[in-house]
Amino acid sequence: MLNEIKINNSCGILLASSIWGIFRGLETFSQLVYLGTDGSTFVIRSTSIVDYPKFRHRGFLLDTSRHYLPIETITKTLDAMSYSKMNVFHWHMVDDNSFPFQSSVFPNLSDRGAFGNSAIYTKNDVKYVIEHAKRRGIRVIPEIDTPGHTLSWGLGGIPGLLTSCSDPHSNRFGPIDPTVEENYNFIRILLSEVNGLFQDKYLHLGGDEIDTSCWSTNKKIQMFMLRNNMSDVVDLEKYYFANIFNITQNLRTVPIVWEELFDDNIHLDPNAVVQVWKSDLNSSVSKVMKCGHPVIFSSCWYLNYINYGSDWLNFYRCDPTDVVGKNRLFLGGEACMWGEFVDETNLLPVSWPRASAVAEVLWSHVLNETEAKHRLEEHVCRMRRRGIPAQPASGPNYCHY
Amino acid sequence: MLNEIKINNSCGILLASSIWGIFRGLETFSQLVYLGTDGSTFVIRSTSIVDYPKFRHRGFLLDTSRHYLPIETITKTLDAMSYSKMNVFHWHMVDDNSFPFQSSVFPNLSDRGAFGNSAIYTKNDVKYVIEHAKRRGIRVIPEIDTPGHTLSWGLGGIPGLLTSCSDPHSNRFGPIDPTVEENYNFIRILLSEVNGLFQDKYLHLGGDEIDTSCWSTNKKIQMFMLRNNMSDVVDLEKYYFANIFNITQNLRTVPIVWEELFDDNIHLDPNAVVQVWKSDLNSSVSKVMKCGHPVIFSSCWYLNYINYGSDWLNFYRCDPTDVVGKNRLFLGGEACMWGEFVDETNLLPVSWPRASAVAEVLWSHVLNETEAKHRLEEHVCRMRRRGIPAQPASGPNYCHY
Repeated sequence: MLNEIKINNSCGILLASSIWGIFRGLETFSQLVYLGTDGSTFVIRSTSIVDYPKFRHRGFLLDTSRHYLPIETITKTLDAMSYSKMNVFHWHMVDDNSFPFQSSVFPNLSDRGAFGNSAIYTKNDVKYVIEHAKRRGIRVIPEIDTPGHTLSWGLGGIPGLLTSCSDPHSNRFGPIDPTVEENYNFIRILLSEVNGLFQDKYLHLGGDEIDTSCWSTNKKIQMFMLRNNMSDVVDLEKYYFANIFNITQNLRTVPIVWEELFDDNIHLDPNAVVQVWKSDLNSSVSKVMKCGHPVIFSSCWYLNYINYGSDWLNFYRCDPTDVVGKNRLFLGGEACMWGEFVDETNLLPVSWPRASAVAEVLWSHVLNETEAKHRLEEHVCRMRRRGIPAQPASGPNYCHY
Repeated sequence: MLNEIKINNSCGILLASSIWGIFRGLETFSQLVYLGTDGSTFVIRSTSIVDYPKFRHRGFLLDTSRHYLPIETITKTLDAMSYSKMNVFHWHMVDDNSFPFQSSVFPNLSDRGAFGNSAIYTKNDVKYVIEHAKRRGIRVIPEIDTPGHTLSWGLGGIPGLLTSCSDPHSNRFGPIDPTVEENYNFIRILLSEVNGLFQDKYLHLGGDEIDTSCWSTNKKIQMFMLRNNMSDVVDLEKYYFANIFNITQNLRTVPIVWEELFDDNIHLDPNAVVQVWKSDLNSSVSKVMKCGHPVIFSSCWYLNYINYGSDWLNFYRCDPTDVVGKNRLFLGGEACMWGEFVDETNLLPVSWPRASAVAEVLWSHVLNETEAKHRLEEHVCRMRRRGIPAQPASGPNYCHY
């Protein structure tokens, strides 16, 4: 990703050893150009820059289940990400609330589980997003969160998929039923389809906030536990993920999981990446790395939690460098925009420029609030010129062009 | 404003004794129509409604000084207001940060005090806004906030207008200098122009947050106080507003002032309306009414203060009825959207449907959170169909049409 920019009176040179370095260098170059005082000439200063990111993984999470997001909102997000040199789009596609991903093998999942016919991502939509991302140096990691956060899957007509909370006629459902053998076959086919479509090295398996209460009240599951000498519902999680990691190993994909699986001592795939979202830097992150697992960190960068004022400062002040040093197992972080209260009406202004503050923490080796504040004002206006409705960052201001 | 709607199998009748009642009744009628289960027929139930507002003044404040707002953002706000039966647009036009109002008599105020040439409201712009509002049953009350909040006025080339904080060469300026006789002439001409343009019965004079420190450090002003037996800078406020009320009396306009003037025991115009924004209902409101002044209340409806989640509930739970009863001096309230962190990128989603919760408190005689929650979801989708990008109100949801 290293790139070098040299600009003098006669010419400008951009050097990089990879296409990705060229991408980032071009972005830097575009930001070096500014409108001269005559109001019509664009100028650039003589300069010499050697630049490379502090962390490899600079991600942005979008949640398309709690509210459906039109493709244009997603591609605009990708555009804005590239303006802040972010390189991973973490697509939290499906969840309790809706299942917008159209599977070829199981079309009923979205036909019945999406919010509506116009709230579905077809294969072509997904390919379009991946291509749009790729052209901006952004990889797309899909998340298929199981076994919890799957209520909308229950509408898809897969018999026995979700745990019935008590007797077979209950209307309340819990996580995927880990005791049903056919469920693993279903998940294998689904993950295989997703993996084939996205073609990324990573696949996010979720694993967060598993509400095990239905496992405890379902008699069939209790019988299964007895038969298999399981004394705790956590054993069911272990059993479930042993099966899932088996699937991802066969797919030759690197699994990412939310931190609960690590906290619950689930036996992880040796290559599994752990995404820390609940704990602060000092607790879980070091523990996970000590166990040899790479870490993606996001606890302090939840964009959906809004506050009055310049709350980008809270994101900016969360710098992992002191804690993680140069440990290569710390891959980087993600700004997370969960979808409870955002949709196409407000997603872009709520996200930008707040996510740019996260991006700078993940890219820059030197952080400086005062300078960042000025640059952020400039960046807001730059994003607007480029079609991103970035909201005010730090109070009264005006974009002159 | 009373209106009556009767709908049966053969016909629908809307009765009202004024055009304003017809406006509100038509809005109600439009909200009674819904899409039938066949997905293509619009239907309405038989019903009989007698409706009238709880409070007369149901306002929305926009601040066009801290960020410039394009005319379209203002007219969309007016549209959305009418969908929630709000009837007063309080236009906080100018403030410290910029002076976007183009005065015919003093064009330098906006030429130099606006953020830029494209950030100016011409006479035609203002007339367009007033006409747009009028056609929706909304009056427009301009606010020309003095003597504080006027830093941007200082660029307009009116000699001696602002208080120099110490010696004549100081670069720091404070409020309008109350000791300069010519300043009252200037304000008289400006207010007269504003009043002639807006043609509303009311004129908001501001009077909030007067930073008197520069009055205390300016020697000329200290001399003036000595000469006039003034022992406290509050006496300067009294002197200033005695002059200003004299002007508004000649203009035959009813002044509105922020509550500080009442709290500071400034001798108010006997007709002056006091807008309470700092104190809660139980303290100032009753005191102001006891002194015979009408009240507009806004303390608990500051839309600019955002919170994660369904924060419309905080607005909804602030119901003045118990405290003010049927006291006719309580005119109503205003949802205030101060401009520090909103501009055209986010103003509409941040405002709506949160302001609709305020509107319901000000209109409806019966409040019910559970029902309001459902109606608000419906109203969000209705506003979107009508071109207002209203953001999610209470979590995951989807507008089916």
